[in-house]
Amino acid sequence: MVERIVKVLRDFKSGRIDVADALRLLRDLPFKDIGFAKIDNHRALRRGFPEVVFGKGKTVDQIVSISKRIIARERLLLVTKAPEEAFKKLKKLYPAVKYNKRAGIISYRKSSPVMKKGLVLIITAGTADIPVAEEARATLELMGNYVEMLCDVGVAGIHRILNMKHLLDKANVIIVIAGMEGALASVVSGLVSRPVIAVPTSVGYGASFGGIAPLLTMMNSCSPGVAVVNIDNGFGAAYFASLINS
Amino acid sequence: MVERIVKVLRDFKSGRIDVADALRLLRDLPFKDIGFAKIDNHRALRRGFPEVVFGKGKTVDQIVSISKRIIARERLLLVTKAPEEAFKKLKKLYPAVKYNKRAGIISYRKSSPVMKKGLVLIITAGTADIPVAEEARATLELMGNYVEMLCDVGVAGIHRILNMKHLLDKANVIIVIAGMEGALASVVSGLVSRPVIAVPTSVGYGASFGGIAPLLTMMNSCSPGVAVVNIDNGFGAAYFASLINS
Amino acid sequence: MVERIVKVLRDFKSGRIDVADALRLLRDLPFKDIGFAKIDNHRALRRGFPEVVFGKGKTVDQIVSISKRIIARERLLLVTKAPEEAFKKLKKLYPAVKYNKRAGIISYRKSSPVMKKGLVLIITAGTADIPVAEEARATLELMGNYVEMLCDVGVAGIHRILNMKHLLDKANVIIVIAGMEGALASVVSGLVSRPVIAVPTSVGYGASFGGIAPLLTMMNSCSPGVAVVNIDNGFGAAYFASLINS
Amino acid sequence: MVERIVKVLRDFKSGRIDVADALRLLRDLPFKDIGFAKIDNHRALRRGFPEVVFGKGKTVDQIVSISKRIIARERLLLVTKAPEEAFKKLKKLYPAVKYNKRAGIISYRKSSPVMKKGLVLIITAGTADIPVAEEARATLELMGNYVEMLCDVGVAGIHRILNMKHLLDKANVIIVIAGMEGALASVVSGLVSRPVIAVPTSVGYGASFGGIAPLLTMMNSCSPGVAVVNIDNGFGAAYFASLINS
Amino acid sequence: MVERIVKVLRDFKSGRIDVADALRLLRDLPFKDIGFAKIDNHRALRRGFPEVVFGKGKTVDQIVSISKRIIARERLLLVTKAPEEAFKKLKKLYPAVKYNKRAGIISYRKSSPVMKKGLVLIITAGTADIPVAEEARATLELMGNYVEMLCDVGVAGIHRILNMKHLLDKANVIIVIAGMEGALASVVSGLVSRPVIAVPTSVGYGASFGGIAPLLTMMNSCSPGVAVVNIDNGFGAAYFASLINS
Amino acid sequence: MVERIVKVLRDFKSGRIDVADALRLLRDLPFKDIGFAKIDNHRALRRGFPEVVFGKGKTVDQIVSISKRIIARERLLLVTKAPEEAFKKLKKLYPAVKYNKRAGIISYRKSSPVMKKGLVLIITAGTADIPVAEEARATLELMGNYVEMLCDVGVAGIHRILNMKHLLDKANVIIVIAGMEGALASVVSGLVSRPVIAVPTSVGYGASFGGIAPLLTMMNSCSPGVAVVNIDNGFGAAYFASLINS
Amino acid sequence: MVERIVKVLRDFKSGRIDVADALRLLRDLPFKDIGFAKIDNHRALRRGFPEVVFGKGKTVDQIVSISKRIIARERLLLVTKAPEEAFKKLKKLYPAVKYNKRAGIISYRKSSPVMKKGLVLIITAGTADIPVAEEARATLELMGNYVEMLCDVGVAGIHRILNMKHLLDKANVIIVIAGMEGALASVVSGLVSRPVIAVPTSVGYGASFGGIAPLLTMMNSCSPGVAVVNIDNGFGAAYFASLINS
Amino acid sequence: MVERIVKVLRDFKSGRIDVADALRLLRDLPFKDIGFAKIDNHRALRRGFPEVVFGKGKTVDQIVSISKRIIARERLLLVTKAPEEAFKKLKKLYPAVKYNKRAGIISYRKSSPVMKKGLVLIITAGTADIPVAEEARATLELMGNYVEMLCDVGVAGIHRILNMKHLLDKANVIIVIAGMEGALASVVSGLVSRPVIAVPTSVGYGASFGGIAPLLTMMNSCSPGVAVVNIDNGFGAAYFASLINS
Repeated sequence: MVERIVKVLRDFKSGRIDVADALRLLRDLPFKDIGFAKIDNHRALRRGFPEVVFGKGKTVDQIVSISKRIIARERLLLVTKAPEEAFKKLKKLYPAVKYNKRAGIISYRKSSPVMKKGLVLIITAGTADIPVAEEARATLELMGNYVEMLCDVGVAGIHRILNMKHLLDKANVIIVIAGMEGALASVVSGLVSRPVIAVPTSVGYGASFGGIAPLLTMMNSCSPGVAVVNIDNGFGAAYFASLINS
Repeated sequence: MVERIVKVLRDFKSGRIDVADALRLLRDLPFKDIGFAKIDNHRALRRGFPEVVFGKGKTVDQIVSISKRIIARERLLLVTKAPEEAFKKLKKLYPAVKYNKRAGIISYRKSSPVMKKGLVLIITAGTADIPVAEEARATLELMGNYVEMLCDVGVAGIHRILNMKHLLDKANVIIVIAGMEGALASVVSGLVSRPVIAVPTSVGYGASFGGIAPLLTMMNSCSPGVAVVNIDNGFGAAYFASLINS
Repeated sequence: MVERIVKVLRDFKSGRIDVADALRLLRDLPFKDIGFAKIDNHRALRRGFPEVVFGKGKTVDQIVSISKRIIARERLLLVTKAPEEAFKKLKKLYPAVKYNKRAGIISYRKSSPVMKKGLVLIITAGTADIPVAEEARATLELMGNYVEMLCDVGVAGIHRILNMKHLLDKANVIIVIAGMEGALASVVSGLVSRPVIAVPTSVGYGASFGGIAPLLTMMNSCSPGVAVVNIDNGFGAAYFASLINS
Repeated sequence: MVERIVKVLRDFKSGRIDVADALRLLRDLPFKDIGFAKIDNHRALRRGFPEVVFGKGKTVDQIVSISKRIIARERLLLVTKAPEEAFKKLKKLYPAVKYNKRAGIISYRKSSPVMKKGLVLIITAGTADIPVAEEARATLELMGNYVEMLCDVGVAGIHRILNMKHLLDKANVIIVIAGMEGALASVVSGLVSRPVIAVPTSVGYGASFGGIAPLLTMMNSCSPGVAVVNIDNGFGAAYFASLINS
Repeated sequence: MVERIVKVLRDFKSGRIDVADALRLLRDLPFKDIGFAKIDNHRALRRGFPEVVFGKGKTVDQIVSISKRIIARERLLLVTKAPEEAFKKLKKLYPAVKYNKRAGIISYRKSSPVMKKGLVLIITAGTADIPVAEEARATLELMGNYVEMLCDVGVAGIHRILNMKHLLDKANVIIVIAGMEGALASVVSGLVSRPVIAVPTSVGYGASFGGIAPLLTMMNSCSPGVAVVNIDNGFGAAYFASLINS
Repeated sequence: MVERIVKVLRDFKSGRIDVADALRLLRDLPFKDIGFAKIDNHRALRRGFPEVVFGKGKTVDQIVSISKRIIARERLLLVTKAPEEAFKKLKKLYPAVKYNKRAGIISYRKSSPVMKKGLVLIITAGTADIPVAEEARATLELMGNYVEMLCDVGVAGIHRILNMKHLLDKANVIIVIAGMEGALASVVSGLVSRPVIAVPTSVGYGASFGGIAPLLTMMNSCSPGVAVVNIDNGFGAAYFASLINS
Repeated sequence: MVERIVKVLRDFKSGRIDVADALRLLRDLPFKDIGFAKIDNHRALRRGFPEVVFGKGKTVDQIVSISKRIIARERLLLVTKAPEEAFKKLKKLYPAVKYNKRAGIISYRKSSPVMKKGLVLIITAGTADIPVAEEARATLELMGNYVEMLCDVGVAGIHRILNMKHLLDKANVIIVIAGMEGALASVVSGLVSRPVIAVPTSVGYGASFGGIAPLLTMMNSCSPGVAVVNIDNGFGAAYFASLINS
Repeated sequence: MVERIVKVLRDFKSGRIDVADALRLLRDLPFKDIGFAKIDNHRALRRGFPEVVFGKGKTVDQIVSISKRIIARERLLLVTKAPEEAFKKLKKLYPAVKYNKRAGIISYRKSSPVMKKGLVLIITAGTADIPVAEEARATLELMGNYVEMLCDVGVAGIHRILNMKHLLDKANVIIVIAGMEGALASVVSGLVSRPVIAVPTSVGYGASFGGIAPLLTMMNSCSPGVAVVNIDNGFGAAYFASLINS
């Protein structure tokens, strides 16, 4: 994308195109209309990462069509909450496309990412929170971050997380993923001097109300240094963590 | 319907029926009882559009029976949230009946509508909001409005909507359909001097709570000129827009 | 109260009263009607503790009147959420009446309680939770329990509670009082083998919603061994703890 | 578990291992990492009961794998909200494993439990509350408690519970399980001098909102001596009751 | 009001007025416009009781002005949630006006009511529910019902209400007023064969959420024969009871 | 049931049984334990109608077993929210058992009911509310009430209900069943002098939140004379109406 | 504002300023920074009405300072939810400033408005809804609309609104303002062929929850042609109505 | 604090204290008990910033007492939501203490902070959001960050924020503070490649529900790169931003 814009500018400077052509070409670029979706092509330039496709609510054909357009212009592709059929169709077109079934993530990368220096540590309170953690890990790795995962260390056995203090201290950013009462984010935040991104999950039953209980817990954390993303939003936490880790 | 009432009045004036007959005939008209449903036959007269059938919660047989009564008396038929089976049964009786499967809308029109002059512009924040937009479009067209749709221009890439300023300015009324955080309605309203009808959708997950999040966003719009209809209620927005556009 | 019933029975056995008198006297005892309140006199017999007066919503005169009736028949009196004026009026009548202003508790005891053996430990997450803790302590002491309090040991500094492990292990029952995110109950419960009674408080702001956030946290505790009472209900937690501690 | 720790200590005292070995061995014990789950092996020591596996949200393979680790080290196993497939796989490995299908509980015990002295009485308001009661009973029996159940004695026919007063008086702890309006906990608590643990259930429809109605009822009990656990959480109530009953 | 209509009809029959006059006079009657309020004068005719003034949100002057119009035409006046100032102003104009300060009810009656035969029994769970009960009693008596009140008989001491079984059986309709957990309505309903009207009150704190807890309890009553009115709506319960008791 | 009690009393008076036998027999009667359910046999005596079985959450075998016990002792049987399989099993045992499939109601009557005098009118706002209305009608007829139904007369066409004023005036009690915005109850109540029982339904979508919207509408009715039962609770409304209509 | 922009353009055309000056002057115009507030000066141009000041949450000094800036450049000023002190300070500076105390609206107009042709009719359900209606009226008149108000015609006496049918038919747009159950909007909408803008108000108590009840009622209107604005937002309804009425 | 620990270690190494003394001294340090509050003295060491005092719910005396302890050991003091009286008392003791009245923040710094390199930009949607922004600014500056504020640039006039694109690009972290519909965070996030911390505020009325509306909006942001803190929690956003900015 960047190359295409630079090319327009150079062509204009060298006289190959005039000002009207230059304007027309640049105006065309910002987003590409494919009938049902406007792909935000400027985003890689503006935000350092191409548009991510939110698969839920889209038909398989829509996902495939949008993905093809993004692959045609960008260095990488990320589709979240994606059904397996969309992956299978894309796999035939681009054999290098990958799929994480538990996380529902389709990913594709033309070239190796430039690795960022810091470590992002993902911590889950329980085993059932792992799919959300996988969504976060797939996103982080695609964006060039070193990642480690620490699963099933909830506050019911507080020594599990205390024993991992050395690992907490090595991380540049920490993502805490927890359902049920979601208390882990506060405890972890109290132990470190790094930002903690909290992801409430819909794991639990009864009065957890599909994730409201851990969401409120995390919003009300008595330990400063915690910020929260949407319920089950592993992707959002990872994206935010990667912005910090650059 | 109108003709039937006028006929009663004329017959009374010319002496073909007396006052008692006239009263009885008029009294009979308002609604027609078919056991489980009272069809509001006066509505076309009173409100300029016949009763719309809300398909959800009705059996296929009930929908077909009500539809037959309406077609017998009215110029057009509109059934929302309708199952395909109801369409198939009606299709056999009235081959001109149409069905929009994604929107779940059955429509039928005996004669061409009188086109209203202004344009109604439908804008969606994402691709997943399109079924609701289709419900709005089907309704608007049946009611004789010119319609254009602009999809997938949510606020994450604000230039997408800014680039469409010329189209916004052409519209007489704008319908903004958005799930997730629903911020698009405020932004669009701030750009134009026309009324914006906001439709929250149940697109999203976690703390969007089936559409409560965009509903509240739209109710609290800091930009005056926004009014809101029910979650996923593309029909209601279209009906309201058509009233304004007359 | 017990003495009065025994007296009726003995009088009947000895022939001083006949069966009709006995029935009438016994029937009279269960509750005493004073116009606006029925005092549950059998409660000390049935439940081991006389009726506790919930002061909120009652006028000062009502509180005084009910208190006088209870003092006349019972060994002790406890009024919760009581205004200072009620205390002042009672103080004139019964100089031994005590008042804890922060907790809003009026208490009175004719004789020393029989001390129960176990220790009840009250823990608060923050300083602002102390009034609720005071309500719990006053209740527990009136009911004859040994009590210790440990304040301001919330999870933002988890070592504060870990350093107190020896004290946790000495307790027979633990009451954890916390507002904001309320995570302390789960952490404490994970450290001990004794029951933990959790009291959410209305301390906090914003998304704590007057105590809903810690209430949900505590209901969803991932650590078994936690049960919950109403928001700010220090009295209820203490009463429950005392039942266990007998 | 205890034996393993004592062995380390004795080996160190007798000189069979040095301080470094002792430290390493002890450090290894607290929890055992099996990739996706950290089993809290110290819990039996710390809390008197091994870690309970919450089956919901875990795959069958994860449940089996975690269960095998626990059986390898502990005296007993308890899995709640478990699918039948997990039971079938475990049954092949450990023929003594049991399954309560309605309650979804897998249990296993190497040796007979030491029976606690007091009786825990489980009361349900309706027949539909019985699966939650079964979860509580299975847990209580595994933990060595005497249990009796009293079903379908809701407040619509108050004499049903009054006629059982003799049974209420025999219990050391009472668990009341009720959906719909959940009023039974208050009534029972008012009749006895023992702690009542209230379990709201999701039985009901309309404005019971999946258990919120009985949850609020129980939180607001006008009768002191009631504490509440999560909706449908029969296990949690039983665990709490067993702590009291020791 | 009735007399005024009858007079119009008689005047027309006798020829004192013609059809146009009759129509004009009748058309004038239905409601009387006094600028800010349309008084519904036909209501006494249509519903058997004149319009009741809801005082909250109205200025003192508005209450006085509306009250004067009603007194001018009707047999009685009832203002609920009324400030004392409004009473004082009305008292000067109509010395017979009465005021119940705790209930905030202004009432006035030109003639004695025709007493209805059945008894309406008002029961409150606690002393703090009495102001709502007073609002109900004032309304019932104004409407000509025999009333008895039974206060402070909540379910924490279930024998208090059981001992009153004879009184319950005498009532034609029963109003149960309760805050906190609101369980009393179900218990009472289970004991009788008469309709029970339940009034949740905002008495309580914490998770009673201003009356939501008892409202939900009452809506979910497992005992049929209970219907519910708004929180603290003693007037509404009384009005409904009086309709039944006629 | 009544006969059985009278027989005990007569047998005692005539000397056929002594006081101990009498007591034992009477004590046995109140409820019959069949393992998982206590049938409240005294209810017909106490409340004029035998216990109604709430089918939801019970297994087919439980429903059949409870139904058999009730049929053995009572004059009639009513099961609500019942699956068809339960009906089929009962049909084989008692060919006279009836089933209303849309309403999910099993009913059975040994003898003709004594008809009550007044008419109960059931009104629905829409066609989709009819299943709830059927549940109400089945209950009312079983209890001996004359019933009429008036369907699909919601407030969008207010003349539909106004035209039925003569029918409203004939009714002794009116049940109004409405989903969506639920405004019909207020309008009907304003037109009549009889009590209106309002039933909110879960018909609607989006911000109707499964019936919360019409529930709140009905609770806040500006027209006195409305009381409310649970969402979709046609049975409860009918039972309440029948109590009034006696 | 328009004049200032035209002046820049003309000065540029005539050579009085060069392109750089023109750009700088135009760039300066969009909003004027006064430290704590950016006044949106382009709004009159873009939207046909200058920025409206939302007084709530602003200090008196801030309101006065912002108002002065707006008056300096615009044809009119509107401040909503404004305290009287702000009015008094502005009155000294601009004697023509007006204040509607009940509505909390400060308004000011340099010249007479161009009157729009259609009538906007404001209807309130009760007397207590009038302050919100006054806010709507003040806004509408400032924007040049003909306005009529019809107060206290709620659905409890449905004939009140039916008698006003002729007035409903004259209106171009209708604003319905209602608290409590908010049913009036549906009823009015069913009677006319014009758009109805519904304003829920916080009038009511108990389960009206500060306006949630009428808000939900209006969102779920079974009558198409209704759109909703925020609770108590008379200004927003008026602004929206005026956009339609142009 | 660090110095005190180092001193203990050096004294031990040099032999001035033995191992028992060293342990005792270190053990004493973690937190200091002052009766009602445990000050977390290790926090500066562990987290890089001393404990922040949350003033709400604490008495003035408690705030002063805790503040004195912190000042005695730490380099700086920060009290949020503090009443002016607490400031006045502290001012007498430490004349350098500062107070920001609108934000309710007491701050004190013994030495100049080491400035961090990046800029933190604070953006508010409206003027009424400024007190929360002030709380954020005071915190950020105390922690050594460069800060700029951009107020009143909400989405109703989207060009206001677009015109500030150059400023957005200069920031290392952006804090967006917005009430009402809270849409600004998504829009800003879509324009930049830096993390955006969103703070919902309780500014607004009606359906903003004290900040729930903007909270949900921000949680559901369709633009990745947004994380959220509690309603009105300017301090928490600032603390989190400072962690990123180091």
